[in-house]
Amino acid sequence: MNVTLRGRTQHFRTVTFDAAKNEVVLIEQRLLPHEFKLVRTGDYKETAAAIRDMIVRGAPAIAGTAAYGLAQGARAFRGKSLSSFIAHVKRVYETIKAARPTAVDPVNAMNIVLAAMRPGEDVPTRQALALAAAEEFANQSVRECEAIGKHGAKLIRSGANVLTHCNAGWLAGVDIGMATAPMYAAQALGRKFHVFCDETRPRCQGASLTAWELAQQRVPHHVIADNAAGHLMQRGEIDLVIVGSDRVLGRTGDVANKIGTYTKAVLAKRHGIPFYAAIPLSTIDWSLKSGFDIPIEERHEEEVLGAWGIATRSAERGMRNGKRTFVRIGNPTSPARNPGFDVTPAELVTGIITPLGIFKPRELWKRRRELQAMR
Amino acid sequence: MNVTLRGRTQHFRTVTFDAAKNEVVLIEQRLLPHEFKLVRTGDYKETAAAIRDMIVRGAPAIAGTAAYGLAQGARAFRGKSLSSFIAHVKRVYETIKAARPTAVDPVNAMNIVLAAMRPGEDVPTRQALALAAAEEFANQSVRECEAIGKHGAKLIRSGANVLTHCNAGWLAGVDIGMATAPMYAAQALGRKFHVFCDETRPRCQGASLTAWELAQQRVPHHVIADNAAGHLMQRGEIDLVIVGSDRVLGRTGDVANKIGTYTKAVLAKRHGIPFYAAIPLSTIDWSLKSGFDIPIEERHEEEVLGAWGIATRSAERGMRNGKRTFVRIGNPTSPARNPGFDVTPAELVTGIITPLGIFKPRELWKRRRELQAMR
Repeated sequence: MNVTLRGRTQHFRTVTFDAAKNEVVLIEQRLLPHEFKLVRTGDYKETAAAIRDMIVRGAPAIAGTAAYGLAQGARAFRGKSLSSFIAHVKRVYETIKAARPTAVDPVNAMNIVLAAMRPGEDVPTRQALALAAAEEFANQSVRECEAIGKHGAKLIRSGANVLTHCNAGWLAGVDIGMATAPMYAAQALGRKFHVFCDETRPRCQGASLTAWELAQQRVPHHVIADNAAGHLMQRGEIDLVIVGSDRVLGRTGDVANKIGTYTKAVLAKRHGIPFYAAIPLSTIDWSLKSGFDIPIEERHEEEVLGAWGIATRSAERGMRNGKRTFVRIGNPTSPARNPGFDVTPAELVTGIITPLGIFKPRELWKRRRELQAMR
Repeated sequence: MNVTLRGRTQHFRTVTFDAAKNEVVLIEQRLLPHEFKLVRTGDYKETAAAIRDMIVRGAPAIAGTAAYGLAQGARAFRGKSLSSFIAHVKRVYETIKAARPTAVDPVNAMNIVLAAMRPGEDVPTRQALALAAAEEFANQSVRECEAIGKHGAKLIRSGANVLTHCNAGWLAGVDIGMATAPMYAAQALGRKFHVFCDETRPRCQGASLTAWELAQQRVPHHVIADNAAGHLMQRGEIDLVIVGSDRVLGRTGDVANKIGTYTKAVLAKRHGIPFYAAIPLSTIDWSLKSGFDIPIEERHEEEVLGAWGIATRSAERGMRNGKRTFVRIGNPTSPARNPGFDVTPAELVTGIITPLGIFKPRELWKRRRELQAMR
């Protein structure tokens, strides 16, 4: 999407590939929203490290990065022996897979690239096929987000106030994003609406990343404390909730997403406000039978007891005269609990916005053949 | 309550009076939880400034401070003229009243002291009556909290997990506190339970003040992000919610409290978890007819876009090697909305814990004579 740097607006993806230099080009997301910087990984090990160190995050974005990383590794091979090449590619695959062991999307992405390479009869052909497959994977990922946007835009009328949680924006995808896709599509249709971004403690992806995206895209918005959404709903200030998801159960329609999502769904239900999750098809888990079977990662307590930000002398908006600093907020002798995700049961979900249309959560299983056919 | 300093445990109130020196002694609450320090105000103007600058906060605590401040001001008068004395006391009253113009508790407290002084026939008698009335006001405030604790302790069984929001603890009162009173009373009865403290963004009074109190009192507890309570309730990890309140409507039982309280009440209702507000009788507003008539203060957006804490190199618990720092968390070009309070309708409130017993919210109006008779 667009980023304005020194008055000049340019289009970026979170991940692209420089074929001439055989480098993966990434937005250094750990510096956002305070600084915009691109980084280039010189080899597949650096690409794996970028995934591991969270320079890039978000399931579709790390999937795209893994696909490019595999092509990058394959293309770096010097030699003619197909069996040596295959052994090398296997090492590349395992290195990138190990960068984020619990994520399924990078593995799926690399499997697609591997499958595309297989018909190649010699090393150069396989290298070319790998790059073409990685590019196609990234482009397909963007087309999926465009389709999410097309379907989801119908939900956003002019005058609407939309709430979103965490960041399922273009920074989490290759481009356009998931929860943000309907917003960007509605904006392109000329609709005037406003977004509330939950700050999304403890890591504050809403206040930092989603707010940055919306500001860059000139979508009117306000950041709110996670505590404020209930009050705003009670006073009629929120019309619609759209979130992303880490995993939607195909059998039940239950939605796993960042901690706090469930709370927003409960509040939306009480106030009769529609609640949607926007996802690419790869997010659907067709095997698990209950939301309670989804393991909930307990993260480090430091995230709750403190916060990362830019130390600043001035409290004025727009200033950023300081360096990245961790501050301890909580009592230093108190422990914290930090569940990273929660599960919203299907009964609270109005619909799932997918590239193939908007479905009621219980409809996914009925349409599983159609939904599984893609990808 | 107890504070352990350099291995020695002592009892403190948030506000006391040193009659020999004519000084009000306050806990400097802005330094907590990182530093414990007492401050002494040398005259009533400094006492007013301490209220204004939030060295002391919480309705019962600033009420006690105002009562002592009025006595302090009265006792500083040199002279014999009763009419000059009365004019002087009027100035003291107005100065302290102006320190927190929207608060009703300091004014009520000073009115009680004024009324107690009136029978005095000369200046020294009135000065003595003022001090006695201020002391009695503070002691009565503590007795009310003891009574809240006695009634509320019945709700906390051994093994219970209690959720609280913000700080309605002893730091917000003269001692013992409101939401914490049942906890401290249950602990004194030997019950073993555990407390979850919502961090309570944006000002984080739960992570800082409530967690500090509970740690000092050795009540087992964990801090959680405001986003986590819904998930914990869903997984059966919370049995009871007790919060304080800034205003309870006597006619309806609606509860105004820190932003995010309403959300916790909605979640508690969904999960069949009892939800209580613990209050002194002065918190009951007998005039307003609807929770929607309670004005909701919109506070400065900086509170949402950043956080105050101790800058620290080490992320280890217990370390506090740094200075108090504001960090910007959010996107620097994004605005924020910051409603400071919300209103929980009576239908979500299981009961109101008062010094006279636990009442259903709709019972308050029926018992108004009894409840209004106190104070």
